[in-house]
Amino acid sequence: MKLPVSTEWALHCATTLAQLDPGASASTTQLAQYYDLPAPYLAKQLKALVKAGLLAATTGPRGGFRLARPASEITLLQIVQAIDGTSSPYECREIRRQGRGALPPDECRHTCVLAAKMAEAHQAWRDSLSGVTLADILTTLPPSAPARTRSRLTEMA
Amino acid sequence: MKLPVSTEWALHCATTLAQLDPGASASTTQLAQYYDLPAPYLAKQLKALVKAGLLAATTGPRGGFRLARPASEITLLQIVQAIDGTSSPYECREIRRQGRGALPPDECRHTCVLAAKMAEAHQAWRDSLSGVTLADILTTLPPSAPARTRSRLTEMA
Repeated sequence: MKLPVSTEWALHCATTLAQLDPGASASTTQLAQYYDLPAPYLAKQLKALVKAGLLAATTGPRGGFRLARPASEITLLQIVQAIDGTSSPYECREIRRQGRGALPPDECRHTCVLAAKMAEAHQAWRDSLSGVTLADILTTLPPSAPARTRSRLTEMA
Repeated sequence: MKLPVSTEWALHCATTLAQLDPGASASTTQLAQYYDLPAPYLAKQLKALVKAGLLAATTGPRGGFRLARPASEITLLQIVQAIDGTSSPYECREIRRQGRGALPPDECRHTCVLAAKMAEAHQAWRDSLSGVTLADILTTLPPSAPARTRSRLTEMA
């Protein structure tokens, strides 16, 4: 059970964009240099965040990415699911209905109790991540961090 | 983020073995026929459950598998981790330390806050699954289920 390596990229890039001045944006190149990541692959991840409505892409010579809404309205769950999708890690293929032990249909009207417990666990994971916003993450940074982030992103513009 | 398909097999086979009479066991062939699963691949999964200390393998002509301890002492988390391992789905490669935005070492003495939040979510998932034992699952079955399970496993012995 593995999340894509780019999940870390997406979480960090979104956190970085949350530190920009209002209206400012950062390009793929700037973000790729900031974290020493491969720009073409990072571009694909940023696109996924745009598609999910978390980032807005601005065009033109000073174009780039910015948050599509306030940092307090973007959760870690939304970022992770933009990269990895929303499906549960547990796949129930209903083996209870097959083989010599196949259950009668009337005992299969409800979700298999094992699948239900796996779904509860996935929901606990989702609840944990949906309870943390980018704004929450920003409050944990040293007070001087946002200014430094902006300066380092800009100096390579 | 996907668990192996055999996670479902392991959960169901363990639940089935939890319904046997004390001292009884079921062979790979019996379990494979019970759920219509490929015996050689199922054997590998059952071996993983033995290695994790959840099942005991008995040898001889009537050999097979039984629970290694009471159903009330085997959790869904233990079964899932016997199949998929214990590592977190989120991989933190410490990109905060690299590139033009690399943080100074003194700001990296603690776990990255994003990695910490992802670890909390994984712990929530673990807590959810470790709160459910095979004994809990058995209480949700119809009262007639265990006798039927035993009979169907035996008739193909």
